[in-house]
Amino acid sequence: MPLVIKMKIALAQLNYHVGNFSANTSKIISAIKEAESKAADLVVFSELCVSGYPPRDFLEFDDFINQCADAIKEIAKYTSKIAVLVGCPRKNPNPDGKDLYNAVFFIYEGEVKQVIDKTLLPNYDVFDEYRYFEPGKSFEPILFKGKKLAVTICEDVWNVGNDNPLYTICPLDEMVKQSPDLIINLSASPFNYTHNEERLKVLKANVLKYNIPAIYVNQVGAQTELIFDGGSIVMSKSGELLMQLPFFEEAIETVDFEFRISDLNSKSEIPNQKSEIAFIHDALVIGIKDYFAKLGFKKAILGLSGGIDSAVVLCLAVEALGKENVMSLLLPSGFSTGHSLDDAKHLSKNLNTAYELVGIEENFQAFLHTLKPFFKDLPFNVAEENLQARVRGVLLMAFSNKFGYILLNTTNKSEAAVGYGTLYGDMCGGLSVIGDVYKTQVYELANYINRNGEVIPQNIITKAPSAELRENQKDSDSLPEYDVLDKLLFQYIEKRKGPKELVELGFEKNLVDRVLKLVNGSEWKRFQAPPVLRVSPKAFGVGRRMPIEGKYLG
Amino acid sequence: MPLVIKMKIALAQLNYHVGNFSANTSKIISAIKEAESKAADLVVFSELCVSGYPPRDFLEFDDFINQCADAIKEIAKYTSKIAVLVGCPRKNPNPDGKDLYNAVFFIYEGEVKQVIDKTLLPNYDVFDEYRYFEPGKSFEPILFKGKKLAVTICEDVWNVGNDNPLYTICPLDEMVKQSPDLIINLSASPFNYTHNEERLKVLKANVLKYNIPAIYVNQVGAQTELIFDGGSIVMSKSGELLMQLPFFEEAIETVDFEFRISDLNSKSEIPNQKSEIAFIHDALVIGIKDYFAKLGFKKAILGLSGGIDSAVVLCLAVEALGKENVMSLLLPSGFSTGHSLDDAKHLSKNLNTAYELVGIEENFQAFLHTLKPFFKDLPFNVAEENLQARVRGVLLMAFSNKFGYILLNTTNKSEAAVGYGTLYGDMCGGLSVIGDVYKTQVYELANYINRNGEVIPQNIITKAPSAELRENQKDSDSLPEYDVLDKLLFQYIEKRKGPKELVELGFEKNLVDRVLKLVNGSEWKRFQAPPVLRVSPKAFGVGRRMPIEGKYLG
Repeated sequence: MPLVIKMKIALAQLNYHVGNFSANTSKIISAIKEAESKAADLVVFSELCVSGYPPRDFLEFDDFINQCADAIKEIAKYTSKIAVLVGCPRKNPNPDGKDLYNAVFFIYEGEVKQVIDKTLLPNYDVFDEYRYFEPGKSFEPILFKGKKLAVTICEDVWNVGNDNPLYTICPLDEMVKQSPDLIINLSASPFNYTHNEERLKVLKANVLKYNIPAIYVNQVGAQTELIFDGGSIVMSKSGELLMQLPFFEEAIETVDFEFRISDLNSKSEIPNQKSEIAFIHDALVIGIKDYFAKLGFKKAILGLSGGIDSAVVLCLAVEALGKENVMSLLLPSGFSTGHSLDDAKHLSKNLNTAYELVGIEENFQAFLHTLKPFFKDLPFNVAEENLQARVRGVLLMAFSNKFGYILLNTTNKSEAAVGYGTLYGDMCGGLSVIGDVYKTQVYELANYINRNGEVIPQNIITKAPSAELRENQKDSDSLPEYDVLDKLLFQYIEKRKGPKELVELGFEKNLVDRVLKLVNGSEWKRFQAPPVLRVSPKAFGVGRRMPIEGKYLG
Repeated sequence: MPLVIKMKIALAQLNYHVGNFSANTSKIISAIKEAESKAADLVVFSELCVSGYPPRDFLEFDDFINQCADAIKEIAKYTSKIAVLVGCPRKNPNPDGKDLYNAVFFIYEGEVKQVIDKTLLPNYDVFDEYRYFEPGKSFEPILFKGKKLAVTICEDVWNVGNDNPLYTICPLDEMVKQSPDLIINLSASPFNYTHNEERLKVLKANVLKYNIPAIYVNQVGAQTELIFDGGSIVMSKSGELLMQLPFFEEAIETVDFEFRISDLNSKSEIPNQKSEIAFIHDALVIGIKDYFAKLGFKKAILGLSGGIDSAVVLCLAVEALGKENVMSLLLPSGFSTGHSLDDAKHLSKNLNTAYELVGIEENFQAFLHTLKPFFKDLPFNVAEENLQARVRGVLLMAFSNKFGYILLNTTNKSEAAVGYGTLYGDMCGGLSVIGDVYKTQVYELANYINRNGEVIPQNIITKAPSAELRENQKDSDSLPEYDVLDKLLFQYIEKRKGPKELVELGFEKNLVDRVLKLVNGSEWKRFQAPPVLRVSPKAFGVGRRMPIEGKYLG
């Protein structure tokens, strides 16, 4: 009978804070102790957990990298009885190539035994890794307790079929030459609503190809616009999902490997695979929560219009921050309809959150009066519409400054796309909560929020959307119906279809021209928008870099 | 006596517009005709001139790339008698690697004869080329009229000593194996105030190393924050600067080569090498000019406070747009000093530009009144200071919306760095003109503007800076003196020194801690700032990507 080698491995799925070395290091050390108390032989953390991910241009500071190295030394002190795999940037010791590697340190018995460098460096969408890192070029498994661990970092397992045209190498193809026993992947893989499914698919393709089991540890929590969903995985060599850590929560779980008998001795509980809208909902909640926590703020304010966007943002904020920490301002103008105020109050009562009523008419009229000598009898137009939105912005920011609230922005992705919003008005805010959620998805979110009974009053969901900046205004006066608009925007933004292709897909040419002109013509506005919580594969912000003065498509 | 081969080469240093295929193509064709009329054999354009540079994520649209290909076909029609080197993205025909190459097309006799792909792809600071492009891997000189042209693209000549650690290859080292006769470099090399000097140095190192002359053609004009200074070059094989095209202007010049006799038969006029501050001045002027031209706007507005920042911006705007196209608003509050208004009026008279006086007190008081039930008797603080700045922002934007002005932002780099400004207040604007110019450099600019006599009244230059948002306020109440602050900021921002290194450089520890905390704590504000015209090697904006919630350094 062959010798059975048992190995207990802990997966540490934690929430880090970029550059907060003391907090990250303490958290890592606590997790090491917890794993040790559970008799784990090895504890696996996530990509760049020591520095937090993504550290961006902090990586260009030598001092920052030195602090990373100091943290590794500190962590090493706690590894006399347990081995640790921890992600951390390291200096490239060679004179050639970028200054840094995106590395994983294997630490055991108080010292760094081996280092693995990330080979496949994503440099698309929100990723800038080739801005900082040199690709790893060696592929040595880590020998631990007689077993070979094929340690990889995030993207390294995403070229499994050599079918990813971005890369010409597949790190595991190299490592497998040395017959490893287990794939371990340390990730910081940002959420989007398609991502969990893709991740399971990719991991399955890996285990089936190499016929060895895999452990995947992801970061959890949000860092400004990027949200990490956790959902760390243990998968058998036959592709069975044996364990998955919860989504959007910190967790430390252990798994027992008995090599040579079976690749794993038990199947743990698997969290429910969420619906797309549930995923988006939970992602937005943690996005708000972490933005506030990491900036050291507690209280949010927002303008509650009686429309569906601010209603959904209020519900998400209450869930993230607690009802006692969220304040709404109801800011009616002479153009606001009665039901707007009633609906807003009704929602606030349902949520049991505070609101104040601050009419904008006094200040709107004061501006009109100040401007009268210059505007004379010119007709009411976008200038006066924007004035109202800006008065609201000023009032909200005054509350923010006086009482220490962060203002939440309530613009949705459809509006952001076509520039249907006032810069320095309703585009104000520290964080855009639903700027990556199309209007049609906002309705889905509202219904999801109401899944166990009415939270958002039905009238808010059913009435026609309106900015209420002039008499009897409706969004549909100046925009196509949202169900058509959103489909068109999705093809242009997410799928990057050009005008001819959009017409081939069945959209009317006039509509295509009009919408594309609106989208491209509002890059200058979006340039100054708050960071947008990213939940789709292509969000506005850092992942979409368009010229402001670009002439392409109008 | 050896055969003399003569070749007349035209350098076309032009201003392109990203994605404006019809305008760019017409401009290229006109230049081809002009070069042909001057009996040129070959005309050399700049990097990615067909699409404009930088096209950013437009490159991810197949349709955009197809339009590039169409433009090449159109241009080819004009090459029956003259050869053309033109920069244009092209599809990567291989299944592996990124989708595109950053290419140069050699077109002659109506067809594309050869294509050169860029090998060294910058991916630092403002550059994202590895986001889109696969590096070129072949190094064939172009054979033309019996001579071999070593055609390279921008960065390709920047690893001449193999001393650039970012790259492991030097394209000319490969090409030189085939004994080329001339180096030709097509660039789109963004200006900063050190760049012309570096460029001459690098080009000289190239010609000396390979012992052949060089032609370097740069783009000119601005594309949002990036400014291209032109200054295209012909350099002899001994490193002599034989010709340099003007800075910040379009130009088409020809040069005659007589190979085998001398590498060049004459030395043309070389424009004066400008002082650093003259360079910055001229760059900012073209930056404003092109932002407006490419967006299709003519008229600018700004708030004229009587301080030096808005004074300098007004002068630059007048130079860029013409005095009839610039309007100032004088927006005094109860805290404004008498000299502020007088100085502002005096400057407007010197420039002969229009201004309007719009007191902010009525609207400020209206807001205080509206907010009184909520603010009660809480002390006057940053909320009321910001209110004044935001009332100014609202008034300026109202004029902007009503009359079609673009608002120019007047924040300087020192203020932007430490967050000394009000978001949605004085941080408003379509374009930040001096956001990459430290306060001490703003004074230099003012003196430069006054070089031929007083434009900016002396009192504006000599008085102590103040935001005038509370009684007797001075910048020095809350900030260190600018000469110290700017030196510290330069070391932190441009030189990326960490806190320990800054103390070693002689800055007081308290000051370092305080300033770094201010800089990092205002990332969230800068995230929403307008695009900043880039004139230094490290400007705020796309070239400096810092976490908003980063904890490093407080």
